[in-house]
Formats: sequence, C-alpha cells, structure tokens
Amino acid sequence: MTTETPSDPRPSLAALSAPLVERLVADAPMLRLGVERVGGACVIDAGIGHSGGLEAGRRIAELCMGGLGRVALGPVPGPPSWPFGVTVHSAQPVLACLGSQYAGWSLSHGSGKGAFFALGSGPGRALARQEALFDELDYRDTADAAAFIMEATALPPAELVAHIAAACGIAADRLTLVLTPTQSLAGATQVVARVLEVALHKLHALGFPLDRVVDGIGMAPLPPPGGKFLTAMGRTNDAILYGGTVHLHVAGPDGKAEDLAHRLPSSASRDHGRPFAEVFAAAKGDFYAIDPMLFSPARVTVTAIDSGRSFHGGTLAPDLVERSFRDVR
Amino acid sequence: MTTETPSDPRPSLAALSAPLVERLVADAPMLRLGVERVGGACVIDAGIGHSGGLEAGRRIAELCMGGLGRVALGPVPGPPSWPFGVTVHSAQPVLACLGSQYAGWSLSHGSGKGAFFALGSGPGRALARQEALFDELDYRDTADAAAFIMEATALPPAELVAHIAAACGIAADRLTLVLTPTQSLAGATQVVARVLEVALHKLHALGFPLDRVVDGIGMAPLPPPGGKFLTAMGRTNDAILYGGTVHLHVAGPDGKAEDLAHRLPSSASRDHGRPFAEVFAAAKGDFYAIDPMLFSPARVTVTAIDSGRSFHGGTLAPDLVERSFRDVR
Amino acid sequence: MTTETPSDPRPSLAALSAPLVERLVADAPMLRLGVERVGGACVIDAGIGHSGGLEAGRRIAELCMGGLGRVALGPVPGPPSWPFGVTVHSAQPVLACLGSQYAGWSLSHGSGKGAFFALGSGPGRALARQEALFDELDYRDTADAAAFIMEATALPPAELVAHIAAACGIAADRLTLVLTPTQSLAGATQVVARVLEVALHKLHALGFPLDRVVDGIGMAPLPPPGGKFLTAMGRTNDAILYGGTVHLHVAGPDGKAEDLAHRLPSSASRDHGRPFAEVFAAAKGDFYAIDPMLFSPARVTVTAIDSGRSFHGGTLAPDLVERSFRDVR
Repeated sequence: MTTETPSDPRPSLAALSAPLVERLVADAPMLRLGVERVGGACVIDAGIGHSGGLEAGRRIAELCMGGLGRVALGPVPGPPSWPFGVTVHSAQPVLACLGSQYAGWSLSHGSGKGAFFALGSGPGRALARQEALFDELDYRDTADAAAFIMEATALPPAELVAHIAAACGIAADRLTLVLTPTQSLAGATQVVARVLEVALHKLHALGFPLDRVVDGIGMAPLPPPGGKFLTAMGRTNDAILYGGTVHLHVAGPDGKAEDLAHRLPSSASRDHGRPFAEVFAAAKGDFYAIDPMLFSPARVTVTAIDSGRSFHGGTLAPDLVERSFRDVR
Repeated sequence: MTTETPSDPRPSLAALSAPLVERLVADAPMLRLGVERVGGACVIDAGIGHSGGLEAGRRIAELCMGGLGRVALGPVPGPPSWPFGVTVHSAQPVLACLGSQYAGWSLSHGSGKGAFFALGSGPGRALARQEALFDELDYRDTADAAAFIMEATALPPAELVAHIAAACGIAADRLTLVLTPTQSLAGATQVVARVLEVALHKLHALGFPLDRVVDGIGMAPLPPPGGKFLTAMGRTNDAILYGGTVHLHVAGPDGKAEDLAHRLPSSASRDHGRPFAEVFAAAKGDFYAIDPMLFSPARVTVTAIDSGRSFHGGTLAPDLVERSFRDVR
Repeated sequence: MTTETPSDPRPSLAALSAPLVERLVADAPMLRLGVERVGGACVIDAGIGHSGGLEAGRRIAELCMGGLGRVALGPVPGPPSWPFGVTVHSAQPVLACLGSQYAGWSLSHGSGKGAFFALGSGPGRALARQEALFDELDYRDTADAAAFIMEATALPPAELVAHIAAACGIAADRLTLVLTPTQSLAGATQVVARVLEVALHKLHALGFPLDRVVDGIGMAPLPPPGGKFLTAMGRTNDAILYGGTVHLHVAGPDGKAEDLAHRLPSSASRDHGRPFAEVFAAAKGDFYAIDPMLFSPARVTVTAIDSGRSFHGGTLAPDLVERSFRDVR
C-alpha cells in the first residue's frame, strides 16, 4: 500500500494509520460516531450530529499522530477538582507531532455565510504536502489512502473533499475526514492530547534543530467539554498553557537544551497569566495579535541525553486551570 | 453471530464480549484461572480453587462491561499508603454499566445448607432479559453465546446452568460463567471497577433520564484482597463510597446536572461516615435496611455539555479508606 | 512451537514472548530500533547506533517479563519535578520476574580490551537453564526460538551468539538479542520496569517461599537517560531504591508477611541513605562489596491474602531521587 523512500528510515504515517481508521469505523456504534459519505469520502462525525466521547477522542488523537504516538486517559497531577487527563508519548515526536498532528493545512471553501473553514491535521498532510514544513522535514509519504482530522462543526462541502483528495493524489473514496468540534468530548480530548505537539511547534519556532529531538512525553488535564466555541477554545488552550507538562529528550550541547527549557514554557510569553479566553478577548478576537510564544505547555523538562543533564522551565498554574474550567462565556 | 435491530444504533454487547471471553480462556494459565465444564457450560474460576489475580480482574471487568469500557490498573489519588487503583471509562456508560455490568439478576438454586445464591452481572443479562430494567433501556441483544460474572465462592449447580442457558435461549455449551469471590484478587479488582456503574445505578434511582448520559470516567483505590467475606465486602464498598471519583457528562439543563451532582455522592446518604462493614453490622446484616443512597462514589463531577458548566459534589475521605483497608473483621 | 510439560500449569515464556519479538522487529522504524544479523542471530539495537526510546523500552520490558507482565508509562507519585514513571504488574511475578526478567546469566567472550561482557535477562533464560535458580523454580521451557535482553553497549561477538544458541538448543537464526545500554532511553525504561523483579529477587534472598507469591504491582519514576554509565547506573538504581513502590500479595501466615514487609524495603539495608553512585564509589566500584539487601524498592506493602491483613515497610525518599536525577558524574 505504501512505498517508502528506501533511504528514509522513518515509517510511513499512512501505513501506520490505516488500521486505526479501519477500527474507528468498525467501532463507530460503540464510540457514538457517525459514518457517512460526502463527495465519496468517508466522513466520521465525532461530535456534530453524533455525540462521540472520550474514548473516541483518545483514538482520534492516536490517529492524528499517524499511529506514532500513544494516548491514555487517566489521573494526572493538576487542580484537585479535575483529576482526569491525557498522557501522550512518542518515539518519533517530530514526525508524529509536526508531520502529522499539527493543524497546519488551511482548508476553506466558499465565502460569506455558507463558507466552510477548518484547519486540517493528521497523517494525510504528509501526502498532500501543501506546507513548506514538509520540505524542512524532508519527509514524503506515498499511499493510496489518506486521513485528516478537522475541528469542524459542519460537514465539508463535496468540492473541498475533491480538492483534498486531488492534493493527496488519491481517489475521493479513499479519503477519511474525522470531524471533532472543539466543544465536543472527542474534540476536547484530542486537543489536549496535542500538549506534546504544541511543545514541538514552539521548539521549531524557537529554531531548535528538529533532528536533535529524540523522544517526548506529555500530559494535561481534560477540560470539561461543551458550551460555546469560545469557552471550549479557551479551556483546551488553558489545559495546555497552565496545566500541561512535557518532558523532551534531545541530543546536542547542554547550553542549547538549557536555553530551550527556559524559552519553551508558556510563562516565557508576555501574554501568560490570564485564561486564554481573556487573552483572546483582549486581542479583540484577532488570533494573530496574540503572542505566538504563548502556545506551549506550562512546564517543561529538557534532558540533554549526551550529558545526562536535565533542565526545568515553567510551572503548573492550577488556579488558572480551575478558573478556566469553571467559567463559562 | 449477532443480529442487531436495524433501528438500534447501539452495539451488541454479546458481539463485543465474545473475543474477550476467548482471550480470557486462552490466557487462563498466565492469569491463574481455572477453566472447566459444569453442566456443559464453560466455568472460569477466578478465585475459588485457582488464585486469579489483578490482571484477571481487570479483564473480567472489561468483559463485565460488555466490551464497552476500558479498565486500567495504575496509581490513583487517595490514601498515601494505597497508591494503586483502577480507572474505568466508557462512551456508552448506560449500556455498559446498567445493561451489562450491574449485578441485577438474582440467581439461586436449592435451599438450606447446599443452596447456591449469586447475583449475575455481565453481557448475558441483555439476552436473558429477566429484569424490568431492560424494558426501560429498550435494549434487546441476540446471540448464540452468553457470558456472566458471578461473585460466587462455589461452582454453580448444573440445574442453575441449564436455567441460565434456557433463559438466554442458547445451548449450555455456549454459556460462560466467570466466578469471582469478593475476597479474591480478581474479585476486589472487578468490584472497584464498578465505581462508574454504582454512579449510574444511583443516577437511575434518582430519576435522572438515562438518555441524557453521554460519557463517564471514574477511578477508585484497589482494596487489599483476602480475609473474610465481610471484610472484603466492606473494603470494596469503602473503596468506592469513600475513595471513588466519577466524572459524568450529561445533556440537558444545568439545573438537572447541578441537582444530580449534589444528590449523587455517598455523602448525600444518612449512612455516610462509617466504614461499610460497620454500617452493615449496625443494620444487623440486613442489606435492605441500609440506605440505598449510600451506594455511590465519594465525589462526583457532572458536566452539562450543553452549557459547558460543571458541578461538583462530595469529597474523598482517605482516612475512612485507610481505616477500612487496615481493619480486619 | 512450544511443548509444555503436561503437569505444569504454568505458561510457556517462549510462546508468550514470540509475538512480542515479532512486533518489535516489525515496528523497528517507528521505535527507532536497529535490526541486524550477527552470527545468524537477530540483534535489535535499542540504544547503541540507534536511539530507541521510551516506548521501545516499555515493550522490551514486557518482552523481558516473558509476556507475563504489563508495563505502562504515565504519571506516578514521586518528586514533583519528575512526574513520569513506569507501572508494572504481573499475575505470575515469580515466573515473570525471576524466571525471565532477572539478569541472571553472565555472558562473556574474550579478554582484555576487546572483551565482551553482559548479563543476560529475558525469556530465553528458561531455555538455556544455566542457573541453579531454574531447578528451584522447577521450570523448564521448550521452544525452537529464544529471546534475551542485554545491557550492552556493543554488538556481541559471533562466538558468543553461537554459545547462547547452543545452550538454548536452537539454531542461531532463531535467536533474538535485544541490546539496551543503561544510558539509553529504552535502557532506563526497561531497568526501572524491574522494580517488581528487584522486590522478588530480594524476597527470594530473604528465604520467603516463592510458591506463596500470588500477584504483584509496582511503580517507579523514570530517570533521565544519557550521560556516562555511572550516572545512568546510579539513577536507575535510585529510581527503585528511593522512588520505587511495590505491593505484593502472598499466601501464608501473617507473621511471615509482616516480617517480609519489614525486611524487604531498601531502608532495611546498612547502605541505604545515599545516592547509589556514592555507595558504589565508596565501595571503590566493587559491586560485591555493596550490601545486597540494598537492592529493593523504597516502600512495600505485603498483603497476606489468607487473613486480609496488610503490612507496610519503608518510605519514598523523593529528595534522594531528585538529587540523583539532577547530579551528573
């Protein structure tokens, strides 16, 4: 089904993902998922007309990492009233998080009231290769099937489905789109399972060499789902910004690891210290007016595996998490 | 093997359970389980003549939820001396817990000293449909095989086996009975994995509409097994009543969710505050003299997913758990 | 593939391990493992020329327990700066830990600078039966394939490969050797997953009857990998000696269980109280000058399942763990 460049030792995201998609479809009744066809593609509804759930979100998160990560639900340290959370780890954090899980492909169709817009994440991105990031990753996947995850609240139009399939070079009926509204149970779960991805994305923005990142593990509390989009977006961000922990293992000199540990946590941002919904409101809803350095876990440990030295940065802010999970907008 | 009513989107408990039964039998030596035939049925001994263990209990708990729940062993918050516990979650808590895991079918044979009595739980209940609850759940499963879990300390008589098979409409050799004494390792594990089920059962008793329950996750410390039945029964109850946490996600108005959060925890009962074995002794061993509202987790969070608001009720009582796990009767 | 003695109800370690080896090889690219042939044998490099990772270590740990244990990565209680750890449990702790996971077979070849030395652990030990321990366990496995784990930093010479295969009575091409340097991510993970094994080994040294051990669960924080061997060896030991917790379930009289709980934890040793690397330096690098009673978890609970009574011994020493994980030698 997939052909890897012989010289690339990295696995095929598509090959690892295919069985996860199959199981998601087979277990749809158990996971409260809808499965239908739009423009020929298989569309999995994980929170629009069907309720989905935490386990669906957990599995979608593993799919979103291209099968290169493990996601578990269970108790995590944090605010006493919110003991449940998500733990995620990957031996291929760069490929799993940046090559797959990152919502990097902007997908839109139409304009005005009927317009559809969503960010595409998941293993299909490495087939579509619509982002400059893939040249940098020097990664090219080939397969005859693709899967994407979209934080959408409506079904994508058939034209967009055709566009995505074409960009992947596959037939539309080999395309799977998983829809997870931010407010849904599956949506909240799969977003906080991005705690490691958020760390990788900022690490990349800080210019840390990607080929030095060897392994990573992270965790974050599970925000209560539901309510309005703004509430849900605020909480999922706060779960990571004020409740998330990441431990990275990197190669290279101590100085670079120490510098990373100091600059990586959300506390290094000028916008740190308020629930995200407040930050967003203060920016008048202009996402790009928010300091991009805010998007990272609350606390990080970076271990320089060559020396065995570790560096800590940031700290958990359970009071802010508590406030975020309690307040409604 | 199973045929679902076309109009019922809910999965077949029997179909999801069948592979779990197969694996339990295949792994019997590794899990210290006995497997024998009684009246043609496959009887799995998980703590009578065979010792069983924690992993057997974990798997039996997943079987008991009809394959609709996930159960994990690991650290959970609680009394410092008892760090290990069970985490359980399900995207179908009503069907998994009330339709399968609840010990709702009273099974007995004979009288006097040789009498056999046990409560039957597990996915087979939805085939036997001997309880009014199934009309309310409006759920009917069909299959040619069935599995039950029984907190029994002896093998069931062949007559009872025949009775159970007949009620399920299956051949006796397609029936599996898993026996887990309360004092056994597997018994203690599978009972505390009922922390979510206990919440669902009380929620139902409180009149909360079942179709509004969307998802649920819970955890409870693992009580030390062994000793006399009274000790074991006391501890497994205390693990939930004073050590259990459940987070439910429900649809509908905030008022109903808030009311549920206040009434659901065990602290809402008049019998709350003493180890269960003491309560039982005070009731002179008459189970029905105990306030049924006592049987619920120590603390609950109910999230109203329509508004995004959450409501907390109850609190952990680690001192009572500590005392219960230490004392012997 | 394997033939068990009909009278032995215990499972075949080799039979349970075979699928784990297959999956490790199949997932090698995803787990950053190298796979090559040395003297015909399959050698899996989990941290020499290939980086390996935490998930590789987790899976190698399960293989090392002969498929009789479960190992999970996630948060565990301990020093606040080191929240991630390993949880391990087994319904066959004696066979899983002493019959398989214990590094009991001393393997060496050559002398002087080019000499190779490693301790062999894993399910293959029960085929080779080079240790008196197997007579005591009264366990004999038969299979046409074997797997070993070695804390080695170099490939084993072909002569040693031939020696191991011959001792197992198998063809060299049916032998799998997994190499996990102590400094590597996989190495650190699979060593701390020995927290239960270390308890079993000391229990055995204390003369506690092995046939009374029914079940066990343990956990320990994950030490930062990397650095020099001495640093890594110190930290992996300290993770268990000062950060490890084990709960054992045993048959027999209370007095024996209580005595075990008092003598089992590392605090019962005269060498307790300093990071292991210091103890090792004080012994001038002579491993055999260190009190063997030091090698055990920081705290233990022993439940006597006949009476239901539990006994606690030892206590966590998070400050010592913190110091060990921070310092570099």
